[in-house]
Amino acid sequence: MKQTIWFKKTPYIHSYSSVVGPKEANGPLGGYFDIKLKDDKNNQKTYEMSESTMQVQAIKLAVINGDLKECDIGVIISGDLTNEITCSSFAARAFPIPFLGMYDACSTFGEAVIVASALISGGFMDKAACVTSSHFSSIERQFRYPLELGTQPTPTSQWTVTGAGCSILSSQGGNIAVECATIGKVVDMGITDANNMGAAMAPAAADTMLRHLEETGRGIDYYDYIFTGDLGKFGKTLFVDLLDKAGINVKSNYNDCGAMIYDDEKSVQGASGAGCVSTVFNSFILKELMTEPGCKLLLIPTGALLSKVSSLQGETIPSVAHAVSFVNRG
Amino acid sequence: MKQTIWFKKTPYIHSYSSVVGPKEANGPLGGYFDIKLKDDKNNQKTYEMSESTMQVQAIKLAVINGDLKECDIGVIISGDLTNEITCSSFAARAFPIPFLGMYDACSTFGEAVIVASALISGGFMDKAACVTSSHFSSIERQFRYPLELGTQPTPTSQWTVTGAGCSILSSQGGNIAVECATIGKVVDMGITDANNMGAAMAPAAADTMLRHLEETGRGIDYYDYIFTGDLGKFGKTLFVDLLDKAGINVKSNYNDCGAMIYDDEKSVQGASGAGCVSTVFNSFILKELMTEPGCKLLLIPTGALLSKVSSLQGETIPSVAHAVSFVNRG
Repeated sequence: MKQTIWFKKTPYIHSYSSVVGPKEANGPLGGYFDIKLKDDKNNQKTYEMSESTMQVQAIKLAVINGDLKECDIGVIISGDLTNEITCSSFAARAFPIPFLGMYDACSTFGEAVIVASALISGGFMDKAACVTSSHFSSIERQFRYPLELGTQPTPTSQWTVTGAGCSILSSQGGNIAVECATIGKVVDMGITDANNMGAAMAPAAADTMLRHLEETGRGIDYYDYIFTGDLGKFGKTLFVDLLDKAGINVKSNYNDCGAMIYDDEKSVQGASGAGCVSTVFNSFILKELMTEPGCKLLLIPTGALLSKVSSLQGETIPSVAHAVSFVNRG
Repeated sequence: MKQTIWFKKTPYIHSYSSVVGPKEANGPLGGYFDIKLKDDKNNQKTYEMSESTMQVQAIKLAVINGDLKECDIGVIISGDLTNEITCSSFAARAFPIPFLGMYDACSTFGEAVIVASALISGGFMDKAACVTSSHFSSIERQFRYPLELGTQPTPTSQWTVTGAGCSILSSQGGNIAVECATIGKVVDMGITDANNMGAAMAPAAADTMLRHLEETGRGIDYYDYIFTGDLGKFGKTLFVDLLDKAGINVKSNYNDCGAMIYDDEKSVQGASGAGCVSTVFNSFILKELMTEPGCKLLLIPTGALLSKVSSLQGETIPSVAHAVSFVNRG
């Protein structure tokens, strides 16, 4: 069984958008985001509805950016980290568009792009919106501690991105093609520390990366850019080490979305969250890096498949990573 | 935008399996299930791991039933109702097979079959395993009350199925073809009572049903059987009423999986849960109903997209339903 699937009739990124909170807007990538919230409550009563509204804003903006009508979209494929992905289903409620909810934790954006690409490349529909989000305040209290406690983060913990990113894929009409993808297996190396998700996810990312190179017959230098999703700074070094042990030097063309989004002292290990890779991809990566014809990028969103219950029950943290290959054919 | 997608190169159900708890085994469909647990702890320490193990058992048995090897399966597409679908990701960890996690609540089995069918029909892979599960004890305490309270269920509440059902879809080698599917929109009629999910889901099921008939140009009599997922007995009457108001008489060829699985006094409204439609479909429906060549069935799994947090925050219950058309081509 091969993990890599090829989109012979390649889907294209028709349009995209990003919405972020104040902390992300003030970070090094701030200039690339489309909508920057002044208040992370986003005029809503709860953080969960704030996140859901960010998804709505992201979809609406991507529709406008693509000069589309909402009814042009065949399906919304979305996910987030709140229990039962209510932020996604509540956002989809705002649109007269079919809905497929996904959950692969922070790798969900990769999963959504793969499913959307298969639906479009297979000729089942013309356009699909892929959107994922997260919100520091809804996720911190769901997975870790009440916000009011003001708990000190551990040295390896990552800061959950407040943001939503959306790509609208289409059968035609763009430069950035989705060429192939490697669907990840669940990898569990026995990590139990929910404050060290980079360590749990790095082996999954390395596994998918190695499998991708093996099945495509490509070397690491084939890609101009390789980005993992949200390993953070510590997880990023683990990923580099794991590939190094497999004889692959990934350093020069590699970075991690989670390691780039913050530069403040509170979040030294970087970012995580289903909104991490989707906001960085749909802003900095598409606006700044993927501009030249021929440019090739491998995006490897990473996900830690734990819950608060599984952690409290002493279970380890299974992880997954999906690799998606993009090329600028403009 | 059309909600219905057609699988020109139709995938087939290659093999299938069902695993249920003692209460389901003692119900009217007991004779059709493959594995019947004597103890719903399933030799595990927690109910969550019991449910996860049921998924593992279901996948392994479907592989055996289909005379396959695990490495023949291109992807496991799975979901359940536990927070962050850990029962599914922990089950997928047991297999060297790529994993796509889905969440559309109790309609996830329909979603999984649609995504698997697109992957196979589009030529991206040859075989995919679709599996969903639920467990009364893990879900009751997650969504409602601690089990130790022994809370009296309200008159409209449904009993969560303890069970897992698996279909392995293949590009060839079976009689039951997946012919087309209608992907549901999120429908929210303002229901806020988490103990009346049939009322929340029935409008979504009716919406998808009407859209399916409209887009396929079929009458209600085209199908020998129409099954909704888990509206329960109360939700089933609402579904019939809603279609009746639209001028469609669905009574004679229609039933609801959730209304069939129990006949005891504790669960007068019937069943719900992501394991409801998947166990009934992969047992009674495939073994008893879909045996004659030419037989046509429309399966409409239904999902209530709420969480405990969204309910406590006073939000309404958005719902979704996906319709999948099966035909026996044997």
